[in-house]
Amino acid sequence: MSKILESLEWRYASKRMNGQKVPADKVENILEAIRLAPSSMGLQPYTVLVIEDEELRKKIQPIAMNQPQIVEGSHLLVFAAWDDITPEHISDYISHTASVRNMPEEGLADFKNTLLSIAAKNTQEQNFVWAAKQAYIAFGTALIAAAAEKVDATPMEGFDSVALDELLSLKEQGLRSVTIMPLGYRDTENDWLAKLPKVRRQKEKLFIVQ
Amino acid sequence: MSKILESLEWRYASKRMNGQKVPADKVENILEAIRLAPSSMGLQPYTVLVIEDEELRKKIQPIAMNQPQIVEGSHLLVFAAWDDITPEHISDYISHTASVRNMPEEGLADFKNTLLSIAAKNTQEQNFVWAAKQAYIAFGTALIAAAAEKVDATPMEGFDSVALDELLSLKEQGLRSVTIMPLGYRDTENDWLAKLPKVRRQKEKLFIVQ
Repeated sequence: MSKILESLEWRYASKRMNGQKVPADKVENILEAIRLAPSSMGLQPYTVLVIEDEELRKKIQPIAMNQPQIVEGSHLLVFAAWDDITPEHISDYISHTASVRNMPEEGLADFKNTLLSIAAKNTQEQNFVWAAKQAYIAFGTALIAAAAEKVDATPMEGFDSVALDELLSLKEQGLRSVTIMPLGYRDTENDWLAKLPKVRRQKEKLFIVQ
Repeated sequence: MSKILESLEWRYASKRMNGQKVPADKVENILEAIRLAPSSMGLQPYTVLVIEDEELRKKIQPIAMNQPQIVEGSHLLVFAAWDDITPEHISDYISHTASVRNMPEEGLADFKNTLLSIAAKNTQEQNFVWAAKQAYIAFGTALIAAAAEKVDATPMEGFDSVALDELLSLKEQGLRSVTIMPLGYRDTENDWLAKLPKVRRQKEKLFIVQ
């Protein structure tokens, strides 16, 4: 079986973690996978907060249905999408691209105009939803990267995003939280889900081959 | 460097493919990764069409800005999200879970009611957007799985989803296309993007560590 399939088989959404700390090099590898994740137009319209501070995680726990992994893990990743796609975002991206590719910005004028016109024809909410979808690609990438490091990562949508945005001052930064993910190690003893078989839709139902 | 990071470094959004066919076992591994991808509540609210038929791909190409990879690749994956989360979807999922875990459905009554109440309090459009976000996790998983097999996969949002839904009769099946992905092999000679360095946001900008 391929390494990716092995990692996907191994992982599950741990409901309890054991408090053991994820080593810095493993966290770095997970973050680097997030950084390399693809996104539409390459824009990466999101920021990821990496919260190790325990007091802060304790404050987040009640905002997220008191899920214990938030404090039983050692790090909490908060995926926050841009609340709009602004001309400044696009200018920054074009400048960065020109710099990485060692070319004049003028060479990217058409691409820049395409981006500007897409962002302008959408409402702010549509731009946010689009940014959020891109964040989900990075989120899925993080889950696989964590599993490859034998680190447990629980994907969570069950939290009060308005309250979390307020606690983390995200609105002021043009961000809105979309998903969170504690990193840690499964507590096999106390996790009711740890020993249950994985449930996935049958191949014949999930795929239509033509 | 870890295998995942290597795969993420290796991959890019090929703009031209060389017509070489992706072997069936590699396609199977990519599909199995999609099948194992996590989703909120485990619901997997999407279907993935696997289109090898060349005539059909030729019909899709003009719907997708005439992007050549759609016919230069050997397979096209169409990620189609459920256009709503219905009580039937939830019942099927609960029955399947009970069957895989060899337990009575009654043991899942609370979980079922949670799912039903989430789906009922959302509008159809909200349920669709939520389903689409889950599809993006599977979509990202497919990109990594393809790269691990040294298969090129180009993520595409640039297509007319209404026209594609009509061509593939998706509406009648309660589905809406959200993203597509040709699988094939890069045509390094003719792809302007093949030799350019990857552009990604700098670590200091993408992450906030606290």
